[in-house]
Amino acid sequence: MTGDPVVSDRDPIPAPADPIPTPSSPPPDIVRCASLELVVTDLAAARRFYVDVLGLVVTDEDETTVWLRTFDEFIHHNLVLRTGPVPAAAAFSYRVRTPEDLDRAVAFYTELGCRVERRSDGFTKGVGDTVRVEDPLGFPLEFFHDVEHVERLAWRYDLQPNGCLVRLDHFNQVTPDVPRAVAHMEDLGFRVTEDIQDDAGTTYAAWMRRKPTVHDTAMTGGDGPRLHHIAFATHEKHQITAICDRLGALRRSDAIERGPGRHGVSNAFYLYLRDPDGHRVEIYTQDYWTGDPDNPVVTWDVHDNQRRDWWGNPVVPSWYTEASRVLDLDGRPQPVVARTDTSEMAVTIGADGFSYTRKGDEERGFKLGHTL
Amino acid sequence: MTGDPVVSDRDPIPAPADPIPTPSSPPPDIVRCASLELVVTDLAAARRFYVDVLGLVVTDEDETTVWLRTFDEFIHHNLVLRTGPVPAAAAFSYRVRTPEDLDRAVAFYTELGCRVERRSDGFTKGVGDTVRVEDPLGFPLEFFHDVEHVERLAWRYDLQPNGCLVRLDHFNQVTPDVPRAVAHMEDLGFRVTEDIQDDAGTTYAAWMRRKPTVHDTAMTGGDGPRLHHIAFATHEKHQITAICDRLGALRRSDAIERGPGRHGVSNAFYLYLRDPDGHRVEIYTQDYWTGDPDNPVVTWDVHDNQRRDWWGNPVVPSWYTEASRVLDLDGRPQPVVARTDTSEMAVTIGADGFSYTRKGDEERGFKLGHTL
Amino acid sequence: MTGDPVVSDRDPIPAPADPIPTPSSPPPDIVRCASLELVVTDLAAARRFYVDVLGLVVTDEDETTVWLRTFDEFIHHNLVLRTGPVPAAAAFSYRVRTPEDLDRAVAFYTELGCRVERRSDGFTKGVGDTVRVEDPLGFPLEFFHDVEHVERLAWRYDLQPNGCLVRLDHFNQVTPDVPRAVAHMEDLGFRVTEDIQDDAGTTYAAWMRRKPTVHDTAMTGGDGPRLHHIAFATHEKHQITAICDRLGALRRSDAIERGPGRHGVSNAFYLYLRDPDGHRVEIYTQDYWTGDPDNPVVTWDVHDNQRRDWWGNPVVPSWYTEASRVLDLDGRPQPVVARTDTSEMAVTIGADGFSYTRKGDEERGFKLGHTL
Amino acid sequence: MTGDPVVSDRDPIPAPADPIPTPSSPPPDIVRCASLELVVTDLAAARRFYVDVLGLVVTDEDETTVWLRTFDEFIHHNLVLRTGPVPAAAAFSYRVRTPEDLDRAVAFYTELGCRVERRSDGFTKGVGDTVRVEDPLGFPLEFFHDVEHVERLAWRYDLQPNGCLVRLDHFNQVTPDVPRAVAHMEDLGFRVTEDIQDDAGTTYAAWMRRKPTVHDTAMTGGDGPRLHHIAFATHEKHQITAICDRLGALRRSDAIERGPGRHGVSNAFYLYLRDPDGHRVEIYTQDYWTGDPDNPVVTWDVHDNQRRDWWGNPVVPSWYTEASRVLDLDGRPQPVVARTDTSEMAVTIGADGFSYTRKGDEERGFKLGHTL
Repeated sequence: MTGDPVVSDRDPIPAPADPIPTPSSPPPDIVRCASLELVVTDLAAARRFYVDVLGLVVTDEDETTVWLRTFDEFIHHNLVLRTGPVPAAAAFSYRVRTPEDLDRAVAFYTELGCRVERRSDGFTKGVGDTVRVEDPLGFPLEFFHDVEHVERLAWRYDLQPNGCLVRLDHFNQVTPDVPRAVAHMEDLGFRVTEDIQDDAGTTYAAWMRRKPTVHDTAMTGGDGPRLHHIAFATHEKHQITAICDRLGALRRSDAIERGPGRHGVSNAFYLYLRDPDGHRVEIYTQDYWTGDPDNPVVTWDVHDNQRRDWWGNPVVPSWYTEASRVLDLDGRPQPVVARTDTSEMAVTIGADGFSYTRKGDEERGFKLGHTL
Repeated sequence: MTGDPVVSDRDPIPAPADPIPTPSSPPPDIVRCASLELVVTDLAAARRFYVDVLGLVVTDEDETTVWLRTFDEFIHHNLVLRTGPVPAAAAFSYRVRTPEDLDRAVAFYTELGCRVERRSDGFTKGVGDTVRVEDPLGFPLEFFHDVEHVERLAWRYDLQPNGCLVRLDHFNQVTPDVPRAVAHMEDLGFRVTEDIQDDAGTTYAAWMRRKPTVHDTAMTGGDGPRLHHIAFATHEKHQITAICDRLGALRRSDAIERGPGRHGVSNAFYLYLRDPDGHRVEIYTQDYWTGDPDNPVVTWDVHDNQRRDWWGNPVVPSWYTEASRVLDLDGRPQPVVARTDTSEMAVTIGADGFSYTRKGDEERGFKLGHTL
Repeated sequence: MTGDPVVSDRDPIPAPADPIPTPSSPPPDIVRCASLELVVTDLAAARRFYVDVLGLVVTDEDETTVWLRTFDEFIHHNLVLRTGPVPAAAAFSYRVRTPEDLDRAVAFYTELGCRVERRSDGFTKGVGDTVRVEDPLGFPLEFFHDVEHVERLAWRYDLQPNGCLVRLDHFNQVTPDVPRAVAHMEDLGFRVTEDIQDDAGTTYAAWMRRKPTVHDTAMTGGDGPRLHHIAFATHEKHQITAICDRLGALRRSDAIERGPGRHGVSNAFYLYLRDPDGHRVEIYTQDYWTGDPDNPVVTWDVHDNQRRDWWGNPVVPSWYTEASRVLDLDGRPQPVVARTDTSEMAVTIGADGFSYTRKGDEERGFKLGHTL
Repeated sequence: MTGDPVVSDRDPIPAPADPIPTPSSPPPDIVRCASLELVVTDLAAARRFYVDVLGLVVTDEDETTVWLRTFDEFIHHNLVLRTGPVPAAAAFSYRVRTPEDLDRAVAFYTELGCRVERRSDGFTKGVGDTVRVEDPLGFPLEFFHDVEHVERLAWRYDLQPNGCLVRLDHFNQVTPDVPRAVAHMEDLGFRVTEDIQDDAGTTYAAWMRRKPTVHDTAMTGGDGPRLHHIAFATHEKHQITAICDRLGALRRSDAIERGPGRHGVSNAFYLYLRDPDGHRVEIYTQDYWTGDPDNPVVTWDVHDNQRRDWWGNPVVPSWYTEASRVLDLDGRPQPVVARTDTSEMAVTIGADGFSYTRKGDEERGFKLGHTL
């Protein structure tokens, strides 16, 4: 009756009604999510947020672009801020294991009929031969192997701020049809680690990994393609609350959208911020090892009020509804397709939704219902 | 324009319109808040909450009563749970410096016309000569000096749970007229450390101390006399989130009412829980030294959205409206008098209220307004 | 002049003078270090140490054996305690990616002329088809894929002790000729992440990984084959000091051999304990991602006093000289071969050795020299 | 048999053989230790250490002097660095409750025949009417009430470094005859909270408080009068290890003399540093409330190896033997008188000394004995 999540031996997500074909070409061997390119409308404001407030390291910068990295990183950047007219995500970038994996990426997406561009000297500083595609879900993905090495600042405690960000942890993408997106990402070599469903099998979100953490990216059900958030990792929880404390001292606490809290899914400690353009940034720490080939998959009931916050604290509506546009390879915003499945917000909050703390104990209501 | 609080050399709270007389008898010399006696309707459930979940130490127990203490404590108890028909607070207990201070307490309250009872062998186990009074605000106060010493378990790391509670930190009382209550508590020897006002001088809450922390008790404006909460201290912040994590694991996350978060007032890290009877318990850590005779008083603007939570996270309505009844010396609930001043909730939340993150920047709204 | 370590693109360790042949058979695909089988002389005492003090989870136990796991683990065990006449390590166990990798392990070691045993129902509870070998360095290695799944207790905060151990992190092996051992482990598919050398190229220790952390095992120069230690991970540093605090409360502080401290190598926070049989256990947290194919290798100068402890605190001699015997497949202790290269202790401590805090600043001596 | 410390109702320290007379004049009412004036030989180097490394706040500075404070402080300074020819402590400064307490200080020390100086405009910036004395133990003490208020930076998380120092916690003084010093400090109004003795009643050290923590100052047996150390408090333990990490990154780890560790005495987490002139600085956090009039006194056995470090880690000899000179009111170093009682180092370390982890279990030796 506790409502604790169900553990499965394999991906428990229903087959998609309208699947993307599986290419016969093998996918590239993706090592990890490596960086995100964000278009921002006010570069100075964005730089203040990511550098002065969050403390990311400036690897390089010019008049239109700032290349940033985390303190444990040895490749050129984990985040590119680029000036543009509309806030958007321009590239979700993955590192691949070998130079030849770029050929595999070209073949894989070409077979899918996707638009593919390759530049031997990269699309941005610090990165060599690169493939960019518009994937079948509408997202701009980037694949690269060659990259400039820079100093890993892990030992540079003299430079590290309170609340030091040490790694890029993951992306989170909004897409209308989660099972369809998951099946495609599995074709690309990703593995599901956790998901949220209801009893009818409607899938609200799924987490997928290449590196052995809970995710390199997640698919969140909603109108898409959109970027839900990018997440950076700290070592300890107090480093996340230190960022909140600093935002308060700077009278920027309204940048805190949700949290801090403990996730049910992933078991990580989290915080969600909104940057000056509204791009969402998660600060995240302490999920678990998922690298075994038979890593158990954890399925949460959408009505379990501890799935998104283990402490049962409410998810704010903006977290469900707002997200960043993504660009096509010409830099134009991709059209957004509406989700047709029921939304997680609708089934869990408000007059038509419900959640429980203990399954079978619904009459007790849940915290948000008690208080608002 | 930041809206940061104003610092004063002395108590900035307006004089009460209807003051309680100042006795000519000197007040007792209060050392600190020392314990609270709570009436609970289900002793087994209350014991599970305070002992199994929160990890307080059982000094003694019998069929109707459990005496509990924190790990750094050397006196018999900091919390008494006693079975009764209605959840209520039966005694706010203060330790006084000398046995003679009990005589002073008798004289002080007798002069005020309060009901006073003295028992040389105490009202509860572990405590000797004791004075109990119904104070002019309607609260049942207890004063004692003689007390049984027990082992201070500060070094007993083998017994300490994750999220170890080390001290009773303070009480928080609900009273309709805050300036009137504060002036009376100053007569009793308390000093104001922080308060919340609006530009018109309406006072919404005040924090007052005997020991050199931010408070031994606070007066919160509302229908009263009622107990708002009792607060226990941990050493570190992760010990507070550990309690949240454990509540989640026990599927008791609905016991979390508000937080965790950082207070503006007091600068402490906090969490509010509700026990099985609805009594509110705060877990609290890391306020600041207030023991200097000229300790600056900090006054917060009621519209400053960082006053109650430095990160701007919303205060849930139940936190403003719900509180525990208090008993008279015969064990009957004291009648509750309605607050006539405007309420903090009304002026800060919802259609008629407003708050700001940055003063002069109201058009930006604030977080709660954006999201609910 | 700081003496900071040197970063290389590839393994900087000199080629061994007397290499072990590289098999033509491909090595098994090792996922991670998975468990260690330890022979203990007093099972009850060992159980108290690992379960009551360190808080490992008992998956199963019988009269001669206890199977233990960490809180994030989903396979049957990470540590096997087995009664025997002489304290020793009986198996360093690695999980492989597929059942077929066991065939590869058999071929790989058979080609090397090693003793190989395979049991389809495993050598211990919870594990299926297993290969055990005496490797060319004299260590008893185990490889398995099939394993019983058990509950991952990552969310069971109600069960987790203060100082919760969440993962098996690594082994550390003592071997006389580090370059020879490293070259062989690279044949087995390991990659070097860090090492300690002197200017002449004498290699004192090397760290090697399969999973993308700093190591699954390290080779420490000394008389071997012996087990230097097994390491478990916590999430946060305070969980390591909590273990120290508990040992003090239990009057078992003499179980603390070295630390807590911050490693230079790996950048992790550490503590070394000795169990009742003298087996060394490290508690370890927060190294860095090493999973990129071109992860930079970090080489430390043996005379850098911050290499083993970033704070320059002394390494106690027992840490250099004492280690556990390892068993052959018949359960007899392997003979120990003396190291012929200079020892790290000799070149860094005492009359003949030296270390520096800042290179080129040797006249300042170093901390240990000042104080003992 | 554990050897745990003994708890007493009152000061258990033997009466001194050669007591300082108790004045008939009442002592001043001391609120707390408030600041220390240190003479340094290289002001720029000292400023780098206290400001750039430790992160203290510069309230004011000129060519010869820097006035520093902690982040929770609202008075002008907690530490004065002043250029001079010989490293020394020039004033141990206490805040008193009222201006009239300065008259009491004058009378108290005049009756004792001590040299007394009073300056209505203070001896240093930021402080008004001040009394300085050479106390009967040879220490230069300062008493003041009037002081300039400055901003309390407790909420200024935007300015706080990693490892933020929030309060001056205590002094520690070296004196040859501990019982004599303690009896005199009790005349001055201090209360003993803990001490170290042997079975014969030889007293090696005692901790004494005015504010309700374990101490405002301690008396450590040794050649004196000398300053053993000054201690600043952090909120959490990780802030202390952050200072160690930063010292490592700056290649200044040789500034770490002892620790970090957990004290037995006081139960606090600690670290000892040496500044560029060799002045010792402790970073300290999380002792316990001592403000009750009958606070139990804790007496530790000098042979208990957990008394100085709860984890049994060795106390380095320099910590016992080295200390800073103190100045008379003319700025000349006070002559140092040798201790005639046995020294703690001699009775606990080395060939003639012994310590135990468990009383009655001496044959097991202790950690240092095992390893050096």
